Amino acid sequence: MKKLINEPADVVSQALIGIEAAHGDRLRIDHEHKVIYRNGPPRAGKVGLVSGGGTGHEPLHGGYVGVGMLDAACCGEVFTSPVPDQMLAATAAVDGGAGVLHIVKNYTGDVMNFEMAAELAADNGTEVRSIVVDDDVAVQDSLYTAGRRGVGTTVLLEKLVGAAAESGRPLDQLLELATRINSVGRSMGLALTSCTVPAAGRPTFELGDDEMELGIGIHGEPGRSRVPLASAAEAAQLLVDPVLGDLPYGTGDAVIAMVNGMGGTPLLELYLMYGEVHRLLQQAGIHVARCLVGNYITSLDMAGCSVTLVKADEELLALWDAPVDTPALRWS
Amino acid sequence: MKKLINEPADVVSQALIGIEAAHGDRLRIDHEHKVIYRNGPPRAGKVGLVSGGGTGHEPLHGGYVGVGMLDAACCGEVFTSPVPDQMLAATAAVDGGAGVLHIVKNYTGDVMNFEMAAELAADNGTEVRSIVVDDDVAVQDSLYTAGRRGVGTTVLLEKLVGAAAESGRPLDQLLELATRINSVGRSMGLALTSCTVPAAGRPTFELGDDEMELGIGIHGEPGRSRVPLASAAEAAQLLVDPVLGDLPYGTGDAVIAMVNGMGGTPLLELYLMYGEVHRLLQQAGIHVARCLVGNYITSLDMAGCSVTLVKADEELLALWDAPVDTPALRWS
Repeated sequence: MKKLINEPADVVSQALIGIEAAHGDRLRIDHEHKVIYRNGPPRAGKVGLVSGGGTGHEPLHGGYVGVGMLDAACCGEVFTSPVPDQMLAATAAVDGGAGVLHIVKNYTGDVMNFEMAAELAADNGTEVRSIVVDDDVAVQDSLYTAGRRGVGTTVLLEKLVGAAAESGRPLDQLLELATRINSVGRSMGLALTSCTVPAAGRPTFELGDDEMELGIGIHGEPGRSRVPLASAAEAAQLLVDPVLGDLPYGTGDAVIAMVNGMGGTPLLELYLMYGEVHRLLQQAGIHVARCLVGNYITSLDMAGCSVTLVKADEELLALWDAPVDTPALRWS
Repeated sequence: MKKLINEPADVVSQALIGIEAAHGDRLRIDHEHKVIYRNGPPRAGKVGLVSGGGTGHEPLHGGYVGVGMLDAACCGEVFTSPVPDQMLAATAAVDGGAGVLHIVKNYTGDVMNFEMAAELAADNGTEVRSIVVDDDVAVQDSLYTAGRRGVGTTVLLEKLVGAAAESGRPLDQLLELATRINSVGRSMGLALTSCTVPAAGRPTFELGDDEMELGIGIHGEPGRSRVPLASAAEAAQLLVDPVLGDLPYGTGDAVIAMVNGMGGTPLLELYLMYGEVHRLLQQAGIHVARCLVGNYITSLDMAGCSVTLVKADEELLALWDAPVDTPALRWS
C-alpha cells in the first residue's frame, strides 16, 4: 500500500487537522465528534443541512460545508458510517430554530444511524426531516444497501437544496425539493482499478489488466458486470445508456451533468470522457444546461469515473446558479 | 495501461473537445492550434498573458484561463512542448495593444519555442516579455532542463500576475512582478508511483513497493534520490526542509503555500499531508497566509505530491485575494 498517511487508524482524525489548517477561516472542526461545521452560529430561521457518511469520498461531504450548501458534515471512519452521536451533535449545533434536514446516502449503516439521530434530536425538540438519496442505476440491491445506492446525485442535491435553504425556504418544502431532485437524478460508474482501504492495506478487489468493473459502487463493492476494458467512447455509452434508460426523457429536456472522477483518474481523462458523454447527450436530444467535471465524490484512490444526470427545470437551474462558497464548490 | 481514452494519439485533441463542451460559456478553443482562450476579444490596454506547455499537467494551464489569470494556454502533446506556431497564434490573438507576457516553465523545449514565438511576434509588432519559472529545488539540472525545472510556483505566479494584469499594470512592471515572484517561490515533490504516458503504454519508471522517488519532476524524470517509503510526517519533512533551506526565512515571514497532488493521489491524503506541512511551517515560525490543497499541477496519473511556498508580502496577498474566474480557480 502506497499512501501519504501515517498510521491507518489515524487517517480521518489527521485529515481533519489538515482541513482545519487549510480552511480554518471558514470551517470549524469538532475533533471529538469528527464533524465539520461552517464557522459561526446557526442563522436564526434558516433550516440546517447536515450530511455525512464514511470518509474516503472527498471532497464529499466536508468540502461542501459553507454558505449555499451544508451546515455540517459528519465524518465516519473510512467507508464506515458515522455514529448517531456524531449526527446528533451536528443536528443540535446547526439548528437555528427552523429544523434540520439530514441528507443521507442510501447505505444501511448511514440510514439506520441518521434515523436514530433524528429520533434523539426530536426528543430534544429539534424537528428533523431526512432525504435518502438512491440514484445509482447499476444495481437494485447491493452489498451495503436495500435498494439502490446513493452516489453522485448527492453532490448536486446538496448544492441545490443548500441554495434553497440559504434563501430561507422552510423545512417541509426543502424535503419536497430534495425528494424531487432525487427522483430525477440518476448515476452510474465504472472502475479501472480497485481502491485500497488504509486499514486493509491491499486492494479491495482484483481486476485484470484488460478488465473494468461496470456499475461499481463508491466503496469498491461489485457493480453490474465485469467487462473488457473499453475505449472512452464505449465506456461513455456503457454509462450514459443505463442512466438515460432509467427515466423518461423528451427531446429538449435539460440536465445538470456531472462527470466525476473516482480519485485516481486525472482531469485530462475526465475532460475527454466529458466530451464523449456530452456528444451522446446531444445525440439523444438532451440539453446540458450546466455541468461539473472533476473529482466530486470519490472512492479513495480508485481509477474510474461516474456519470450523473439531474433533470433540471428553471427552478433547479436558478438554485444551481445561486452563490456557493465552500472549499470544493465556489461561485458567485 | 488503463486509461479513459480512445487512441493515444488523440488524447489532447479529444480532451480539448471535452473542455470546450464543459466550459464553452467562458472559453474558446482554437482546435487547429490547440490553444485555449477566454471568450471574447482582448481588452484594449490590458497586457495579454500566455502560458502553455506539454499536456498532462491539468488543470495547468488551460484550467487557469479566464478573468484574473491567463488569456491563453497553448497545449502541446502529452509532456511535449507546444510549437512556436501555437504560441505565435496565441500571442497575436491576445494582444490588446499593451503587449504580451509569456509565462514559461523552464524546460529546454518550452523555453526555445517560446523564445522563437516571441521573436516572430516582435517582427509582427507585438511587444513580448517572458518570465521563465525555475522553482524546483530538487535538482540543479535535469533530464529536460539547464537549471532548475519550473513546477508549482507557476500556478501561483499565473494567479498573482493575472490579477496585476487585470488591474491594468503595464508589461514591464508585470515582468518585474513575475521575476520577483519566481525569486521567492520554491517547490519540491515526491512520487509514490510512476505516471504512464498514453503513447508509451507503460509506466515511465519502476518503483519498488517500499520505495518513493524524492524530488520527482512533473514528467516522471528522476528526482534527487530514491528513498524508502515514508510516513506522511516524514515525507512532509523531506519536502519542506529543502524548500525552506533554499531561501533565507525570518520568523514571522508569510507564505502562500500549496500542497499539490500529482494526479493519482486522493484529496483525503493531500489534506493529511497539508496538516503535516502546516505544522512544520508553524514550527519554523512561518505564517501560512493563504493556501491551496488539491490537484493543481499534475503528472498524469502519478501518485504523489509536491509542496510549493511563495513568500508573500501585502502586495502579493492583495493580488492573491483579487477575483479570479477560471475553471480551476474561482473566487470573488
